[in-house]
Amino acid sequence: MSFQLKILGSNSATPAYGRHHTAQLLNVQNHYFLIDCGEATQIQLSRYKCKTQRINHIFISHLHGDHYLGLMGLIFTMHLMGRQADLHIFGQKGLEEIIVTQLKYSGTVLNYTIIFRELNPALSEILFEDEWVEVKSFPLNHRIPCSGFIIKEKPKPYRIDKEKLPPNLSLVNIARLKKGEDIYDDQGNLVYKNRDLTLPPRKSRSYAYCSDTKYDETIIHYIKNVDLLYHEATFLLEREQWAEQTFHSTTEQAARIALLAEAKQLIIGHFSARYKDLTPFLTEARHIFNNTLLATEGEAIDVPDL
Amino acid sequence: MSFQLKILGSNSATPAYGRHHTAQLLNVQNHYFLIDCGEATQIQLSRYKCKTQRINHIFISHLHGDHYLGLMGLIFTMHLMGRQADLHIFGQKGLEEIIVTQLKYSGTVLNYTIIFRELNPALSEILFEDEWVEVKSFPLNHRIPCSGFIIKEKPKPYRIDKEKLPPNLSLVNIARLKKGEDIYDDQGNLVYKNRDLTLPPRKSRSYAYCSDTKYDETIIHYIKNVDLLYHEATFLLEREQWAEQTFHSTTEQAARIALLAEAKQLIIGHFSARYKDLTPFLTEARHIFNNTLLATEGEAIDVPDL
Repeated sequence: MSFQLKILGSNSATPAYGRHHTAQLLNVQNHYFLIDCGEATQIQLSRYKCKTQRINHIFISHLHGDHYLGLMGLIFTMHLMGRQADLHIFGQKGLEEIIVTQLKYSGTVLNYTIIFRELNPALSEILFEDEWVEVKSFPLNHRIPCSGFIIKEKPKPYRIDKEKLPPNLSLVNIARLKKGEDIYDDQGNLVYKNRDLTLPPRKSRSYAYCSDTKYDETIIHYIKNVDLLYHEATFLLEREQWAEQTFHSTTEQAARIALLAEAKQLIIGHFSARYKDLTPFLTEARHIFNNTLLATEGEAIDVPDL
Repeated sequence: MSFQLKILGSNSATPAYGRHHTAQLLNVQNHYFLIDCGEATQIQLSRYKCKTQRINHIFISHLHGDHYLGLMGLIFTMHLMGRQADLHIFGQKGLEEIIVTQLKYSGTVLNYTIIFRELNPALSEILFEDEWVEVKSFPLNHRIPCSGFIIKEKPKPYRIDKEKLPPNLSLVNIARLKKGEDIYDDQGNLVYKNRDLTLPPRKSRSYAYCSDTKYDETIIHYIKNVDLLYHEATFLLEREQWAEQTFHSTTEQAARIALLAEAKQLIIGHFSARYKDLTPFLTEARHIFNNTLLATEGEAIDVPDL
């Protein structure tokens, strides 16, 4: 099953050098989660052949323009393309008012329903949950209320070892095996030990999104052992003081968070428009956390199903 | 002196085939007027090397997203780039609320002042005027309140014919000649007839912007004899009925307005995303009004200084 992150925008406040404002599309087992939605996200979705109407959940970290100004256009386009399915939008206080005000003045009555959920930026909350996936928020440390998101696969079933499976085992018993249970006969005698007929479940994968935030070790608790970590790295090390003042992070700070969180892989992005060449970002981050990638628009990062 | 229209976006409701939402930059004698500001306008301005900070006046025709959703991003970018000059924004009721709400939730105090002027969509009003240029609104016929704009050069001075100019003519008298006046001596005797020393003034050029609107001949009155007319042509003739229902125009309707207005040149745009090939737009429009161009992003149309 898929667990793929697609980068739609990688720059910070001002678009530059062909880099757009922040937006990411995470496909977890065919759930399409849009995370932040900077200006021109609908164009980026189309450019990279993403199926816009399959997005049912949009998570907006905070209300700086470079993280949400593409949302209104996307909402209109979904409407014009005939969307009927509910759209769930998660954002800070104010986002609903911003959207509702613009719908009103445009004279638009959407042919689908938007279900808003206001985030509490001080808490970690479950935002979405079903049989396969869970999405939680957690607090980030920025100039205005800002939440990070962590998306985790739910525990997966034990895998039936087809070579060892006795013939004519009932569906009920197969379901028991998938849950990790042993199998007993009607008299309560053990017939099969689970471990003799199954392989262990595949690993539940996870992705954490941390943008925008200054360096803050309190987030480690929420993202510990994550498979794939996105952490903003707006500036190179040379501008650490400015990063501190603007509540952003440097390359090394992002890498240090990845190291402390024992993440498997780090992606850095939200690059300042002052930098054309991003090579030094990678060099600096890898100095501390080797398995680092640059967020590159149009590129997809797969977390393998192990 | 320059009178140049630059097309930044040419498509209607949904971006498609590399075509963006509506935005145009008109340079009239170094006044930079931004007319509509669809999503990604700031990116288009940068792509086509326009000097964003030289824009002091923004005219938004109406509050459908494809005509203004790039405005907020542009406002933020102007701020981040250190703008200090006032920015004048003209738009329908609601635009100020939309902007102020978003500034509030982003926690931004701009380092420049926005001066809003609410349009009255039922009237033709002077929006801007100085020694050289005048901008007026006029009513368009759309689903929601919508204004067109006409930008005209003020009458120009008579041109001194240097070959005929007598030596030692005072600056006061030269100024009189430029105003078209004859020159008298202190006793009130005619010394020089203006027409003997001057060439007629250059023509005052004009540009009219009509988007979005259904076919409506009442606009002719406002745009009569315009040099350059932009009129939306969202659909080909085949969809005339749909154009009527959605308060848009077809190729032939745009061309008919140009013909009736005795415009010198027509540009059509606001193309529906259903059309990839725009050749039929040109063919259909030219059938009625030959001097027609397609709005093509990145292209500049100059009105010559005759």
